[in-house]
Amino acid sequence: MTTDWLEQIKWTEDGLVPVIAQEESTGKVLMLAWMNRESLDLSIKEGKAIYWSRSRQRLWRKGEESGNTQKIREIRLDCDNDVILIKVEQSGGIACHTGRHNCFYQRLENGNWVTVDPVIKDPATIYK
Amino acid sequence: MTTDWLEQIKWTEDGLVPVIAQEESTGKVLMLAWMNRESLDLSIKEGKAIYWSRSRQRLWRKGEESGNTQKIREIRLDCDNDVILIKVEQSGGIACHTGRHNCFYQRLENGNWVTVDPVIKDPATIYK
Repeated sequence: MTTDWLEQIKWTEDGLVPVIAQEESTGKVLMLAWMNRESLDLSIKEGKAIYWSRSRQRLWRKGEESGNTQKIREIRLDCDNDVILIKVEQSGGIACHTGRHNCFYQRLENGNWVTVDPVIKDPATIYK
Repeated sequence: MTTDWLEQIKWTEDGLVPVIAQEESTGKVLMLAWMNRESLDLSIKEGKAIYWSRSRQRLWRKGEESGNTQKIREIRLDCDNDVILIKVEQSGGIACHTGRHNCFYQRLENGNWVTVDPVIKDPATIYK
């Protein structure tokens, strides 16, 4: 198998691509993170989302601490070849480090960002 | 009304934020584009998605040529304050400049990006 598919992606100057993770069962958008060639290749080989942490500058195996892994069901690329959408099965029903289902829990209401989704599990008990 | 909500967003060095557009009625992810402060503020005032075109370096009123505007139903911000999710009503049922419903029409299958969604309308008849 060639790696043409990897080279067809338009990587940023930093060698990254934004990845939107969407929960297959609910259609909810869980998060946006970044991958580099290695993390995308590994994600496919292992069938689980492995991102590139820009803050820590290292591979970030989603769920490595929390156990809340993301099993990949489908991988799509957009028309400009510079954004990836993965459809995943979210273990534990929690994608966000705040202990919420997904990361988009702040809604704009009359000029304020209002937290509208509940914490499902206290992060202190997720990350030890 | 203050613009604190604008300043609470973590803008990139270029003053941009990635915006995921999701179709409210179907839950499908339509596209990812970028906004700057002005385009986000205008989007809210006009109730329609107005992006910042990085390639053209100007405001991009989604649908300005095609008529396929995106009416904004909800705006959400993620846990890191650096990604926005908008839920929209997609006019014409076409978000992609290729004439497809959305931009994520290439699916990875056995190491190849395969186009799996149909062109709904010939782009030549959309953009004159």
